[in-house]
Parts: sequence; C-alpha cells; structure tokens
Amino acid sequence: MKTVTCTAPVNIAVIKYWGKKDEDLILPTNSSLSATLGQDELRAKTTVAVDSSFKEDKMWLNGKEEGVVSKRIQNVFRETRKRKGNQDSVDGLNQKIHICSENNFPTAAGLASSAAGYACLVYSLSKLFNVQGEISDIARLGSGSACRSIYGGFVEWQMGSLSDGSDSIAKQVTHDHHWPEMCILVLVVSDQKKHTGSTQGMQISVQNSTLLQKRIEIVPNRIKNITKAIIDKDFVTFAEITMKDSNQFHAICLDTYPPISYLTDVSRQIISFVHQFNDHCQQTKVAYTFDAGPNACLYLLEEDLPRVVSLVNHYFPPQNNGLTLTIQGRPVTLQTPTQEDKDAINIPVSPNSIKYLINTKIGKGPQVLSDPKECLLNDDGLPKSLQSQ
Amino acid sequence: MKTVTCTAPVNIAVIKYWGKKDEDLILPTNSSLSATLGQDELRAKTTVAVDSSFKEDKMWLNGKEEGVVSKRIQNVFRETRKRKGNQDSVDGLNQKIHICSENNFPTAAGLASSAAGYACLVYSLSKLFNVQGEISDIARLGSGSACRSIYGGFVEWQMGSLSDGSDSIAKQVTHDHHWPEMCILVLVVSDQKKHTGSTQGMQISVQNSTLLQKRIEIVPNRIKNITKAIIDKDFVTFAEITMKDSNQFHAICLDTYPPISYLTDVSRQIISFVHQFNDHCQQTKVAYTFDAGPNACLYLLEEDLPRVVSLVNHYFPPQNNGLTLTIQGRPVTLQTPTQEDKDAINIPVSPNSIKYLINTKIGKGPQVLSDPKECLLNDDGLPKSLQSQ
Repeated sequence: MKTVTCTAPVNIAVIKYWGKKDEDLILPTNSSLSATLGQDELRAKTTVAVDSSFKEDKMWLNGKEEGVVSKRIQNVFRETRKRKGNQDSVDGLNQKIHICSENNFPTAAGLASSAAGYACLVYSLSKLFNVQGEISDIARLGSGSACRSIYGGFVEWQMGSLSDGSDSIAKQVTHDHHWPEMCILVLVVSDQKKHTGSTQGMQISVQNSTLLQKRIEIVPNRIKNITKAIIDKDFVTFAEITMKDSNQFHAICLDTYPPISYLTDVSRQIISFVHQFNDHCQQTKVAYTFDAGPNACLYLLEEDLPRVVSLVNHYFPPQNNGLTLTIQGRPVTLQTPTQEDKDAINIPVSPNSIKYLINTKIGKGPQVLSDPKECLLNDDGLPKSLQSQ
Repeated sequence: MKTVTCTAPVNIAVIKYWGKKDEDLILPTNSSLSATLGQDELRAKTTVAVDSSFKEDKMWLNGKEEGVVSKRIQNVFRETRKRKGNQDSVDGLNQKIHICSENNFPTAAGLASSAAGYACLVYSLSKLFNVQGEISDIARLGSGSACRSIYGGFVEWQMGSLSDGSDSIAKQVTHDHHWPEMCILVLVVSDQKKHTGSTQGMQISVQNSTLLQKRIEIVPNRIKNITKAIIDKDFVTFAEITMKDSNQFHAICLDTYPPISYLTDVSRQIISFVHQFNDHCQQTKVAYTFDAGPNACLYLLEEDLPRVVSLVNHYFPPQNNGLTLTIQGRPVTLQTPTQEDKDAINIPVSPNSIKYLINTKIGKGPQVLSDPKECLLNDDGLPKSLQSQ
C-alpha cells in the first residue's frame, strides 16, 4: 500500500467568484482573488492510498464514509489518473483509491470547507501519482474556489478563455510572507440556519440577475487594482476594493429572483461597525468581506488587532456578560475599549450574536506530511479514527 | 382671507425611483411607476390661505410650525405664483401664504409622507391661485415622488429629457377603478430605527454604485411590461416585475459605498414568506415591495386577502399571543390558517416583529374639500389645532 498525507488551507476571496459559464468544467464568469489563510487555524488534512487489495474507491470525510460517485469526485479522479507520472510505480489506472479527510475546524463554522477539502484531495493524489505541472485546474473540477487553495499568499483564479478550461487556473499573486502585518479575523456569527447553497445560488443568479453582466464587466479592473494594492502593501486601497466587492456580490444575490440573502442583521451591524470605526480613525483600517453566509471575515493590520478585537468583544459580547469572546488561533491581548472609541461607534451592544473569533494570518499552500504518524489510514487502508472508536 | 383645503394620497412605487440627474430640479435618472393608495387610510390634508393682513409666509406641519425657507418649499412657491391664473382675484405675487397640513397616519409608520404632503400643498396652491394645466412638475420640485400623488390609480413619473424639467411629469396609467380587485397591505415593521434618508442615499448611489447605470438601462423595459400587465390586469406579471424591481433597488443600495441597508431580518422573513406562499399556491398570488425602510407593502387580490392576512398574523403575531394584529383601514375577517398552509411555509414564528397592518386599495388623486368645517385654519389664519389646545 502506498499512502500520501497532505494538508491544504482555506481561502477567503476578496474579489468574489459568483457564476459559472460551464457547470461541468466549472469555468467562472469572472476571475477572482483570495487570501490563503494560515493552516494552524484552518486546514483540511487528507490521506490517499492505493493498494492492489482495494476492491473499490472509498472515501471518508470527517469520520463518515461518503460515496465517490459524484460527478465532481469522478472528474478529479479521472483527470488525476490521466496525468500520472510515468516514472511512478503506482498503477493509477487500475488500482483503487482510499481517501480519508478531516478538517481542524467545525463545518458548522460556515467556512467554505469544500475549497480546502478538494485542494487537499487533488494535492495528495498528485503526489501519489507523481503528477507534474499545473494541478489547480484539477482542483477547480472539484470545487471552483479550491483551485485558489493550491497556493499560499494571495492567489488569483484567472477565468481563462479556452473552452476546455485548461487556462482557467490559479496563479500566486504574492507569497505568504509578502505582507506579514496582514491579519485575518473570522467572526463566526451565531445564527447558522441553512442558506441557499452557493452552487445553486450562483446558477439562479446567472439565469436571472439582470445586474450580473455588469459586474462581470467591472471585475477585471478591480482585480488589476487590488493586485497592485497587494503588491504595494497599500492597505487602504486593498480594503476599499474588498468591501465594495463583497457588497456587490451580495447585491447580485439580492438582484436574483427569488432573492438570495446571506447577510443578517448581525452581518449588517458588523458592516456598520467597520465603517464607523474607519470614519472615527479617519483612515480605512479594517475591511470586511462576507461569503455565502452571515460570517464576517475582517482584514486588518497587526497594529490595530488588539483595539479592534476589544471593540468587537464590547459590541458583540457572549450572552454571559463579563466573559469575553472565545478566540481561536493566534492569541490577542484584550484592552478596555476607550470611551472615545465607544462614543464614536453608534451601534447597539448585541450579546450572543457572535459565537467565537478565529484569528489567523496569510498562510502557505498545501503541505506534504511525511511522518507516518500523520497518516489517517491504518495498514488495512481504513480510517484510524474508526478503529479507535 | 381666501382659503382652499384639499387632501392628497400616498403612493407606493412598483418601479422604484432611486437617483437624480439634477438635484435642484429633481430630475430622476429613471422613470418610475406607482399605485396611489386609498385616502381613507392614508392621506395628507392641507389648508392654504392668503390674506393681505399676513406679514410672512408661514407653515404648520402636524401642529408644529416649520420654516418655509427650504429651497424646495421656495421652488414650489415661486413656480406656483408664476403660473397664477389671470382671472383670479388673489394677488399671488405679493400676498403672503399660510399653510397648515396634517397626515391621518403617524409619520413613525415610515411611509413616505413627503410625497402626500407636497402633492397636497401643490394641489391646494394650484386651486388657490387658479393654476391651469400640468402641476405634477411643481409637485416634483417639492419631492420627486410627490408628482405621482397628483393622480389616482396607477401613475408613471416619466423622467423626461428636457433640461428645464418641463417634461418630467406624472401621467396616469389607469384610473383608480380600473382594477378593483387589487388590494394593498402595508406591514408596519416594529423596528423603526433611523435609516439613511432617501435624498442622501440616492446621492451616494449616483456617485458610486457601479451597478446603477445598468439599472437605468433596465428600467424602461420594466415600465413598458408592467404598464401592459396593469392594463391587462395580469397579476402574475405585475407581481413578478414588482418584486424584481424592489429587490434591484435594494441591490443598488447595497452596491453603494458605504452600503445602504433598508431591509432587516424581518423584511427578509416577509420576502421568504411571500415566495414560499406563492410556491405553495403554484401561482404568484402576492407581491412585496420595500421602500427606503423595513416596512413591507404587499400587493394581492381581494380573494386572497383573508388567507394571506391570517397567515401574516400567524407568523408575525403580536407579542401577547392570543391577540391578533391590529388592522387599520378596511376590515378583514381572519381565518384559522390551515395545517397545509402552515406546513408549506417554513419560516419561524416571530412575535412582535410587525406593529400593525394597514389594509387599503388603489385610490383617487387629490380632492378639494369645500365644507368650511374641513378648513384647518381659523379666521385669523392660524391653525385651529393650536387654538383648541
């Protein structure tokens, strides 16, 4: 049995992906751009194995066996096997694959776990099969945004123009160590009711949002400008484009029929908090972005982190007053918010609105874990997690 | 002293007005279309008087004296005096005007009271000064949407193309008795916090919403199609265009920077209620539209009114369970919602979310009240309401 174990990161788009022009090949209607988050806080971990004794392809996600018959999984398998390196001993075409994957964060967090999951699967398979060259297009076949999780730092998914999708690939914009001051704070909002899935949501938007075409024309300039801002470490420009693009994505959702609403009253209070804080500072110091759910992702610089987290804790405290919000990831020393800050920000104190924070930074792309202890499968090719139960 | 007393209606747009191309003349970036509501439920009432003894122009709104120095009021005065009929005995150019105006609904209802108020002022002045011909353009100078309250039924505000605004006027699409089955239900939402004013909001949207230009291109076709639907009494088409245009207006607000959010969680639950109800009926039976605030305005036909009001009462009951929502205006006989209806509509029961309902129909344009008892000013030209206090 040959195994490979890897990890892959979550990414959060600052220029949003919303709309496919090809549902099978997952070709987007516009390019998008994201930051790859640190894997200490948020990552998928996957072991892939091949052995002549395996009877069929099998997959376990977070300890539960899942089918491998989905078109997306099959597309990933087919494309990876097709590109198998010649020098490799593994018989990728005939041997069956076992896959075991786990996230280090609850799926209930409402973070796009499929991007990290598919990136990790494709990266692991590419190592197993010794695939050379571009693999982000294979990850794209699993989940569009997964192609951006193939690299660290800031990453652009270039929409491409070829009908076979071969130029619809991810490109690294800057390395993960390019902008070390940049912090990312995920505000996990308490109300996690079921939302319209992004696959279905973007289908309806493409079908009937009358504003989406205009957005498609607007995005290239935004990509160009935010890329320059990232390279120049120009936070103000980066932040304003990020917020405008998040708002525009949600505007397109609302212009869809029936309308799609991912933002809640709490999301809007966070938006209001950020704008009032920036106004008060007379400088754009914090940017928000929201994906297909109510959770906020804030971008800000290290120097402003304690002040901002302390204010978030002030306006969105846990139910039990006196306690502070749980912060996962990098520790932050909370301050007592100044009266001046509290006077300047006119939003109600809303207990129990935010469940917890995740404090992270820009991170690396997928990693191979060579220590056999990291392997998620036992010698029989079955999940160790099941064995121990 | 010569006095005239009139009433004028509220209107609710189904194709929204959002954006001016001329702030002084109040020329819109797109045409809009509204229904005029019944005055039994919602109206402004205004008495205007001229007398040689008056020292200055004076105005009382809802019992409180207000200045008349605002540019908008002055534009209305100037334009009305300019068009004074020759055969009239009133010396419109030199005599001072007293104005007293009251609404029969609380301004806290969040309904656009300025449209009814300016329509009533302009209509009253036009009668006082014997102005002949078009007056909706004068009302437009007070408040853009006021021009639509100059007529009953369904009314289009044609944006016009002349730089002096003389062709930016209201035109009646159908009379108030054209579609007698049409009902309008205003759901006054409890949370009435201060929102971005529409004048300021649309200024920012014009400045920086990158999607607004696309909307401006889309509106003419919507006006054409909804006009045909109204003439044909095609409720399904009317309702779908109405909902899409409300959603698009709020999408533009969200695409504005900083973003403007008028819809709350309650508004979104009402939207979800309407779509689920329509899906359940396999027919579009209810349409929602939202202006610059969280209140919903529902359009529906008389035959569906008891069922819909009963369901609204079920999902949005008063705080004190067992009571029913207060219904102002036309009475409705509540039913016990069927289990089938309740099973089909999957939204949480949200007590205390809706304050009360206003049940009304399509109504007439402004009316002259000739009974002297209706006059709001006493023989000294001062408000009777102040006298009695």
